[in-house]
Amino acid sequence: MAYRPPLRDYGFLFRDVLKLDDYSAVPGLADAPVDLVEQVIEAAGDFAAGVLAPLNSTGDKTGCRLDGNTVSTPPGFKDAYDKLVEGGWPAMSVDPQWGGQGLPYVVSVAFMEMSSSANMAFSMYPGLTRGALAALEFGASDDIKTTYLPRMATGEWAGTMNLTEPHCGTDLGMLRTKAVPQADGSYKLSGQKIWISGGEQDLTENIVHLVLARIEGAPAGVKGISLFVVPKFLPKPDGTIGARNTVSCVGLEDKMGIHGNSTCVIHHEASTGWLVGAENGGLKIMFVMMNEARLGVAVQGLSQGEAANQAAADFARDRLQGRSLTGVKNPDGPADPIVAHPDVRRMLMNSRAIIEGGRAFMLWTALNADLARHHPDEAVRSKAADYMGLLTPVLKAYLTDQGFQTASDALQVHGGSGFTEHFPASQYVRDSRITMIYEGTNGVQALDLVGRKLATNGGRAVMSFFAEIDAYTGKDHDAAIKPFVDGAAAAKAQLQEATLWLMQNGMANPDNAGAASTDYLHLFGLTGLA
Amino acid sequence: MAYRPPLRDYGFLFRDVLKLDDYSAVPGLADAPVDLVEQVIEAAGDFAAGVLAPLNSTGDKTGCRLDGNTVSTPPGFKDAYDKLVEGGWPAMSVDPQWGGQGLPYVVSVAFMEMSSSANMAFSMYPGLTRGALAALEFGASDDIKTTYLPRMATGEWAGTMNLTEPHCGTDLGMLRTKAVPQADGSYKLSGQKIWISGGEQDLTENIVHLVLARIEGAPAGVKGISLFVVPKFLPKPDGTIGARNTVSCVGLEDKMGIHGNSTCVIHHEASTGWLVGAENGGLKIMFVMMNEARLGVAVQGLSQGEAANQAAADFARDRLQGRSLTGVKNPDGPADPIVAHPDVRRMLMNSRAIIEGGRAFMLWTALNADLARHHPDEAVRSKAADYMGLLTPVLKAYLTDQGFQTASDALQVHGGSGFTEHFPASQYVRDSRITMIYEGTNGVQALDLVGRKLATNGGRAVMSFFAEIDAYTGKDHDAAIKPFVDGAAAAKAQLQEATLWLMQNGMANPDNAGAASTDYLHLFGLTGLA
Repeated sequence: MAYRPPLRDYGFLFRDVLKLDDYSAVPGLADAPVDLVEQVIEAAGDFAAGVLAPLNSTGDKTGCRLDGNTVSTPPGFKDAYDKLVEGGWPAMSVDPQWGGQGLPYVVSVAFMEMSSSANMAFSMYPGLTRGALAALEFGASDDIKTTYLPRMATGEWAGTMNLTEPHCGTDLGMLRTKAVPQADGSYKLSGQKIWISGGEQDLTENIVHLVLARIEGAPAGVKGISLFVVPKFLPKPDGTIGARNTVSCVGLEDKMGIHGNSTCVIHHEASTGWLVGAENGGLKIMFVMMNEARLGVAVQGLSQGEAANQAAADFARDRLQGRSLTGVKNPDGPADPIVAHPDVRRMLMNSRAIIEGGRAFMLWTALNADLARHHPDEAVRSKAADYMGLLTPVLKAYLTDQGFQTASDALQVHGGSGFTEHFPASQYVRDSRITMIYEGTNGVQALDLVGRKLATNGGRAVMSFFAEIDAYTGKDHDAAIKPFVDGAAAAKAQLQEATLWLMQNGMANPDNAGAASTDYLHLFGLTGLA
Repeated sequence: MAYRPPLRDYGFLFRDVLKLDDYSAVPGLADAPVDLVEQVIEAAGDFAAGVLAPLNSTGDKTGCRLDGNTVSTPPGFKDAYDKLVEGGWPAMSVDPQWGGQGLPYVVSVAFMEMSSSANMAFSMYPGLTRGALAALEFGASDDIKTTYLPRMATGEWAGTMNLTEPHCGTDLGMLRTKAVPQADGSYKLSGQKIWISGGEQDLTENIVHLVLARIEGAPAGVKGISLFVVPKFLPKPDGTIGARNTVSCVGLEDKMGIHGNSTCVIHHEASTGWLVGAENGGLKIMFVMMNEARLGVAVQGLSQGEAANQAAADFARDRLQGRSLTGVKNPDGPADPIVAHPDVRRMLMNSRAIIEGGRAFMLWTALNADLARHHPDEAVRSKAADYMGLLTPVLKAYLTDQGFQTASDALQVHGGSGFTEHFPASQYVRDSRITMIYEGTNGVQALDLVGRKLATNGGRAVMSFFAEIDAYTGKDHDAAIKPFVDGAAAAKAQLQEATLWLMQNGMANPDNAGAASTDYLHLFGLTGLA
């Protein structure tokens, strides 16, 4: 069976868990009553299942091709992209000032999940545009905003992130791409960037590269990094595209998965760019894109788990093999469906718990993104921003580790069929594997959590998060859910103890904190689900 | 850096842990003093590293090709196979009666690991031959033995297992391949078999298929399954190859990994075969091959973990990125090697502990295989056979689950490089993934352990295993290793408690035992390592 959008779970979360209608007085959430949101989500699900999902396997098997400097995306991708633009999906949560629909971020997360479940490699193209748009909106001049944002909001132009160079990924302080100021206020950029997702493609009329580079004479290390906007075609004064810029794709990566996304080696040969924000202030703005992207990657992890688990459950209901230990379940057939076997059920149901808990955790955090941006009360905004900062690395690492594990369990449910490429299981394992790595490896997320986020503002965010859990677990609860509430309280107690240990031992020897950081992050993620 | 055979660890295990020279009075082990064994292992390591490893990536990228019914293995495989035969490697632990060298099984395991680390897809060809040979040696008539075993021992002829059919894998009772008796004592077999590793190839002059089929009129289910030997070319009376049999490859699987091994759809069109063992007694003999194969798969899991971990350690020492939390480690370079970062070390060292503990556990069990076969004392033989039965599912599932996890951690250490196919990390992840599935999925292993092996002979094997651990942990130990011994004792106490729980709850509701079986097996594996 094909991918089925999890509309029921989304309805439950928006209506009964997040209670979106309680926020009808908050700007940015006011115009999104649950009834409308459910309609949008349903249409998004139709788009994902009907347009994107049928291209997922083709994208994997065909991949992208490079001919000279021209990249061809897999058959069908261009048509699907045109439909994406026609449907207005990229503009969903963009500020109406730039032509967007101004829907809450939390609603766009549902679209992101479903389109990524249906076709992760495809959904990366609009995903990166969304991140680039957020960075420009945050840091660019009005001139740049007016030129670029409306066209990126529609999806007519796409965005990329040009960070990594062959010798530096995580450690951006070492980057060498050079920017030379020109008399007209522009810059000429020279250098090579690698692993640029969507770096070149045949889907959009223009590609907007956000490039980290070092202005001649800038200080060494991370203090000398500036951000530039480098379009594939230079915009003319009327905003239409003009001359071809000297930025090009000189190689495509041969990858384990996400074959439908063009991962490029990008060569800047005195390409023309414009400074975004202040000189040497590039990292701060790029982190806006990065944080947006990290949440996007968390959603990708979730999305691959969901899609893989659906495929595995379908397989387990169809495949007849062996008899149940507790008596025949399918007396008219030659054997019982393997879903009758307890170890198969263990894998499917454990995965389902992780997926549904992960989705709730993700959406709750995304709602905080909306509150941090729009709530009239400064105290609410501040607390929501604290949660965003604290939970971004947790969600990124935990949901992607679990997404890969879920995809691997889904493959296992398929048995030998899962190892063949006739079934979708292998692709979910291969595609999901990158989510543990890009936008900062999960080890880097764990270090960000332990080394930075816990200590920010004297630990205000984590203490507030604990208090939020206490407030819930301390209430009177129905007997039916009491055991689960008690479990959550116990998990939180362990997490609090671990937090204390880290704060004490991390100071004495940072290697202690570093070595414990991944296990700690997993405990944090599990507590968040609970 | 290329693959490096773990000779030092093997020397330590054979000399100091297993103390092979203590068995110089045991037939089959008598002619294998440690000095000789170390020489053999060193030569085996040279062969693996020098001949097989350089073909591993080629094998993955080129894969096998089917042209009509002819399969071509990747470039270089035929030459390497000829060298394998010239070196006498397939005959290593085969009985001298069939032209083998009669070395202990435990020594051949070292060869299996190293050749599989170097090139898993390649090493499956001789691996399956070894299993088929064991099954024929156990169950075939003298006539068949005399014809087939000497040629399989040299590797001139290869073996395969024809079990799975499109509608049945684990549940062999449903198989349909039909065998019709002929006047001359042979049978005509008709049916389709899938996922046949090495089912057709261009490496050997003959291929010996061991085929499960149902003789016309046989009882339904597993009680009506017989085993047949079906050669690709019918042997002439002098043992040379004669007419082409009507067994052929009609399709190659498109797989996630092990691209260098030809996984075939095999069509029997009234192919000529001969019964092995008794009518309807096929499963018992095939299980000889299966048990041999399960230990072989355990070794594959270990082998992929070892090779992947080596690659990751090399990468982590070379890649400069960031500075150590505890002060600069590489003051002359632009950054420290990533091995300085505690989360990277955590992954590498955790993997190394699993690999070295797993190798010791594997070899200890393999030594028991030799004792079960050769020891003059019936009590020793019986106890060793108990261990073999008990630990085969544990090793198969635990070492392959951990092998895949280790390969995935090794990929993670590579960061973005690991996701590209320019580095070996992705191949180890993709190749190792099948080991959790074939020769009985790991869920089937867990069920075999919990539902069958624990209870056999009133739990004799597991009680003997516990007593063995107690005897060791109860001794006086050096203070330096005391904490580890105490840890082993604690693990064993937990395992014993879990065993009791399973015995009590498994009877009340078999689904309880089934649902707990995988976690139980993991606890068993971890205790075994300890």
